[in-house]
Amino acid sequence: MLSSEIEIDIRFSETDAMGVVWHGNYLKFFEDGREAFGREYGLEYLTIFDKGYFTPIVKSEIDHKASVFYGQKIKVITKFVSSKAAKIMFEYQVVNLSTNELCAVGKTMQVFLDRETRTLELLTPDFYRIWKEDNLA
Amino acid sequence: MLSSEIEIDIRFSETDAMGVVWHGNYLKFFEDGREAFGREYGLEYLTIFDKGYFTPIVKSEIDHKASVFYGQKIKVITKFVSSKAAKIMFEYQVVNLSTNELCAVGKTMQVFLDRETRTLELLTPDFYRIWKEDNLA
Amino acid sequence: MLSSEIEIDIRFSETDAMGVVWHGNYLKFFEDGREAFGREYGLEYLTIFDKGYFTPIVKSEIDHKASVFYGQKIKVITKFVSSKAAKIMFEYQVVNLSTNELCAVGKTMQVFLDRETRTLELLTPDFYRIWKEDNLA
Amino acid sequence: MLSSEIEIDIRFSETDAMGVVWHGNYLKFFEDGREAFGREYGLEYLTIFDKGYFTPIVKSEIDHKASVFYGQKIKVITKFVSSKAAKIMFEYQVVNLSTNELCAVGKTMQVFLDRETRTLELLTPDFYRIWKEDNLA
Repeated sequence: MLSSEIEIDIRFSETDAMGVVWHGNYLKFFEDGREAFGREYGLEYLTIFDKGYFTPIVKSEIDHKASVFYGQKIKVITKFVSSKAAKIMFEYQVVNLSTNELCAVGKTMQVFLDRETRTLELLTPDFYRIWKEDNLA
Repeated sequence: MLSSEIEIDIRFSETDAMGVVWHGNYLKFFEDGREAFGREYGLEYLTIFDKGYFTPIVKSEIDHKASVFYGQKIKVITKFVSSKAAKIMFEYQVVNLSTNELCAVGKTMQVFLDRETRTLELLTPDFYRIWKEDNLA
Repeated sequence: MLSSEIEIDIRFSETDAMGVVWHGNYLKFFEDGREAFGREYGLEYLTIFDKGYFTPIVKSEIDHKASVFYGQKIKVITKFVSSKAAKIMFEYQVVNLSTNELCAVGKTMQVFLDRETRTLELLTPDFYRIWKEDNLA
Repeated sequence: MLSSEIEIDIRFSETDAMGVVWHGNYLKFFEDGREAFGREYGLEYLTIFDKGYFTPIVKSEIDHKASVFYGQKIKVITKFVSSKAAKIMFEYQVVNLSTNELCAVGKTMQVFLDRETRTLELLTPDFYRIWKEDNLA
């Protein structure tokens, strides 16, 4: 299974008046995870853009298991989820490195839009089919 | 069914390099929706805080149906979802008022934490049980 | 003097672990103020874009006078500052409507970039010269 | 002169519809710079908090020299500015590591608030006076 890890320091601006990381910021951590995965396996946002596509997020889910406080450090583990559809799917685990707790899990789904027309690609783009053959064999 | 509506102007800072609203910002729009609901029905964050509780989000989901561009205005419809558990659940619909399209739907689930000890309340707090009796009868 | 006002509800996500609005969020409030000004006087981001220009912020300043807490409402007063240079300048006052205090003041300066080439326009664009003649006479 | 450096990958969510980093996000980069400085020299937010103080930003300035695009990496150089007043002041330089350009400079000023009463400390707190003697000698 393809996966990637990245460590992230919490920003003060990412906390809220409860003194913990504001829940919506986990989607930024997932984004950090996806880009770390992309750098490791050659599937970065800009690589995909150069192939002619935007890949907007069409679905995201976050399950929070424990709060994260300012001063703590987290690790995001990003796992590629294979699919026959023209989609890119990831699962995420966020570990609080200061407590060794799993603090959140989540999922995202992306589709391919033609960069110029912004129309949905229903078929898997060639470059992505090849990437999957090369990486998932 | 209890529901509330709020109209929101998109901020330029909420767009991304694809020229559309960055997906994670919808959790801010859901927050606006929850607070609009709270103001209308007496279930605001600060009211709950005064009763002795934090109500962190433990689960959130967003399904994107269409992109929203800068200069467009959205409406968030927030519906209360009743439950016997000690949880607060909402469903959201985001309508692009400039195109009359449904652009996103979503859900959130909140739990009750004692404000001082930050321990999970497994039983429905009295004030919330009464609020439900008064509002859902 | 040309000026515009807009009222803003603080988002929970805009607070930080000190329990107050995180200082950097005032630049979002200034943005809300600029766009409110633009809607009132016909100088919106999208209008300028249609004329062929981006107008990035090249300078910004914030002076904080008092903290703003969650649940409070603010008003941003945006004043146009006239200049002979090819620049757009604004001054801002942020008033806490819950306490009637001035909580922040600030300034921004924008320049004109050709939308296609992203090169700096050293001369005042015609549309902006005419806008100033019409509005500042 | 005391200074510290930190490298930062731009998040996609930090770009805007002009395709570049939204100007307000530089205050997040300055925050990263301050915390990197704090870790290196023992002046972190949490250390100061343990001494009994909040240190809110009361003044900030950003001058932008060049745009930063998604996929580029930046470095923030944070310099401590000594002062006799009960203030913490920093100057920042943001270098685009992908182009080797200076893309922004800035300043911040922080004051000391008693953590419990939130009143302004007009005299330099002891711990900070000692920290300056130890580090600036």
